[in-house]
Amino acid sequence: MKPITLLQPSRVVFGAHQWDNLSDDPLLSQADSLLFVVAQPLRDLMNPLVDRLTAAGHAVKVLIYDHPGEPTVSYFQGLLAETTAFNPGAVVGVGGGSVLDVAKLLAALDPTRQPLETVFGKDLLVTRQRSLICVPTTAGTGSEVSPNAILLDEASEEKRGVISHYLVPDVCYIDPELTVSLPPRLTAETGMDALCHCVEALTNVNAHPLVDAYALEGLRLIMGNLETACQDGRNLDARSAMALGAYYGGLCLGPVNTTAVHALSYGLSGTFHVPHGLANAILLPAVLRFNLPLAAEKLALLANTLGLKPKTPVGDGAEMTTHEVALAEAAIAAIERLSLVCGIPQRLSELGIEEKDIPRLVDSALTVKRLLVNNVREVTGEAALALYKTLL
Amino acid sequence: MKPITLLQPSRVVFGAHQWDNLSDDPLLSQADSLLFVVAQPLRDLMNPLVDRLTAAGHAVKVLIYDHPGEPTVSYFQGLLAETTAFNPGAVVGVGGGSVLDVAKLLAALDPTRQPLETVFGKDLLVTRQRSLICVPTTAGTGSEVSPNAILLDEASEEKRGVISHYLVPDVCYIDPELTVSLPPRLTAETGMDALCHCVEALTNVNAHPLVDAYALEGLRLIMGNLETACQDGRNLDARSAMALGAYYGGLCLGPVNTTAVHALSYGLSGTFHVPHGLANAILLPAVLRFNLPLAAEKLALLANTLGLKPKTPVGDGAEMTTHEVALAEAAIAAIERLSLVCGIPQRLSELGIEEKDIPRLVDSALTVKRLLVNNVREVTGEAALALYKTLL
Repeated sequence: MKPITLLQPSRVVFGAHQWDNLSDDPLLSQADSLLFVVAQPLRDLMNPLVDRLTAAGHAVKVLIYDHPGEPTVSYFQGLLAETTAFNPGAVVGVGGGSVLDVAKLLAALDPTRQPLETVFGKDLLVTRQRSLICVPTTAGTGSEVSPNAILLDEASEEKRGVISHYLVPDVCYIDPELTVSLPPRLTAETGMDALCHCVEALTNVNAHPLVDAYALEGLRLIMGNLETACQDGRNLDARSAMALGAYYGGLCLGPVNTTAVHALSYGLSGTFHVPHGLANAILLPAVLRFNLPLAAEKLALLANTLGLKPKTPVGDGAEMTTHEVALAEAAIAAIERLSLVCGIPQRLSELGIEEKDIPRLVDSALTVKRLLVNNVREVTGEAALALYKTLL
Repeated sequence: MKPITLLQPSRVVFGAHQWDNLSDDPLLSQADSLLFVVAQPLRDLMNPLVDRLTAAGHAVKVLIYDHPGEPTVSYFQGLLAETTAFNPGAVVGVGGGSVLDVAKLLAALDPTRQPLETVFGKDLLVTRQRSLICVPTTAGTGSEVSPNAILLDEASEEKRGVISHYLVPDVCYIDPELTVSLPPRLTAETGMDALCHCVEALTNVNAHPLVDAYALEGLRLIMGNLETACQDGRNLDARSAMALGAYYGGLCLGPVNTTAVHALSYGLSGTFHVPHGLANAILLPAVLRFNLPLAAEKLALLANTLGLKPKTPVGDGAEMTTHEVALAEAAIAAIERLSLVCGIPQRLSELGIEEKDIPRLVDSALTVKRLLVNNVREVTGEAALALYKTLL
């Protein structure tokens, strides 16, 4: 078993209505000034919390995150200026992946010591002075437990990542109640993103038994509950399972991370503004089929975990490999079916992307070397081109 | 899904030879003075590490833990006096559960603010000023990730626990290489202890899906590797799997904890000095059989996870429950078989315990209410008496 380092919040508070206990969290009690970064649709949720914390003597500032699409460098810089002026002792992010990524970076970055431009990459942040709590309201990006934060550079249309152990929150509150109002489309897209985190970690050159366990448990939960969460958003059992599945997906990100699915989606989001989860969801079955020759064992393991039967009957004299491939195909088919029944568009043309756009997508994908190197099968320019074309 | 709070080290370094990187750990770099608490047989292991740290300018003190059996209050007080005098910035425990428990408490307890006597119980520690790293050398107690530390009060022959989130280490290094020299008997006893942590969490009134996932993964690893680890101690794959299984067992301790197995073992260790793991191992099958009527579903789930077949054939017209019970019995039988082949004595009489001793054991067990309340089936004095008698 090869070495691995897990980074994780030292405290994970999971369960419905746990949000109500946040104002009593010891990490907040210890800080004089508290900054909340909150997704715009959740601003009303904040009022009782802010009242309680203000009454307890804290200086509280709420930044409403209202940027459409993924956070851009310039939008982040505006929030950073406000944060620096307020100088909070603790930062709390409340929202989906974009909000949490921004909150994490606001907590960690001291622009008087390190300009933003200098921290893109791995392990370049030198410290984090502020406490950090993340409260995910989608299930989800797993940002609440990951060391990653991604910003979109508008000029280059490139997504740029900051990866650092300082970005792992001290504490996360995962309250499935906060996800029940999420509409079906967002439930589906964010849920498929979480599914990608798990299955990309499982079928990854850096896969590790320790992370496989998280990935398989996450996949079991997401595959068993995403359809219900989309169809009946108020089903708290399904929402809880999804929240937990997304948490496991997040735990896969730090030590193993994603593969060609996320790499090929960069251009879709960066240039064509396709939502992150949707971009990944469209790509996932095609990338899994591309990877199948080198990922059959792991996908067969997934099929067994899910109790799936081989997709095509296997004759008596069949080799083990054939059975394994048939099982792996069953896993891919199950993922594809889930995506379909959750209302995810299955073709790039449905998003207005045409054949002429594909070379740009290929160019963008090939820049994401840090994820492509994780893929079990090499993704050349030709392979990427062919893959996008099958999805037109 | 009911609420749950997970406490865990913010960094887990897992893998063979990771011990060699400990001297470069940022947590140690930040502290001027470092205290190591080290199991006596491992003292030579410390020399290169101490040399490196001393050369890097740290003041280093090594406390050799050489107490036979479980740590007593008076032995701990001696180490606490030395720790207070040295006043380290960071404490590192290197050893089995006793050593780690002691190291954790030495890191957390400031006797000028809180005498030891005042912190026995749950959440009574008020702070921890020193950084804390745990390095387990058995697989094991899971103490490297748990919020528990247990001392033996010699006067009352009672084991007394300190439970606090301050006792969860900041970082743990789990290096399976450190366990290869562990003799078969200790491998078996500590491995069965880890197995108990998992199965007692699974069959627990406070069981939680989030912890079940850890418990089942731990059980899969331990059931599949303990025999090999005992028979071929140098098998690093088996040692790695056991180290990981023990880690999962440790993650079960904080949020869910153990049941009647650990409660009934208190007197065996406290009064008769039976090693902790051995005491639990002897009791485990009998307690599982006692609990079977109320734990069949979970034990059947374990059997399915392990790929076990029902112990006795079930007729066509059999109820689901009967099939479930047959599966559950198969799980118990597999555990019992593992214990036997690993050389664990199966009877209390083999340890010199006689019928006349049983009332004392019952009295001791009934004091451990904090664990007995976790048991799915009520353990009365009569039930405990009958249970011990079956093991004579």
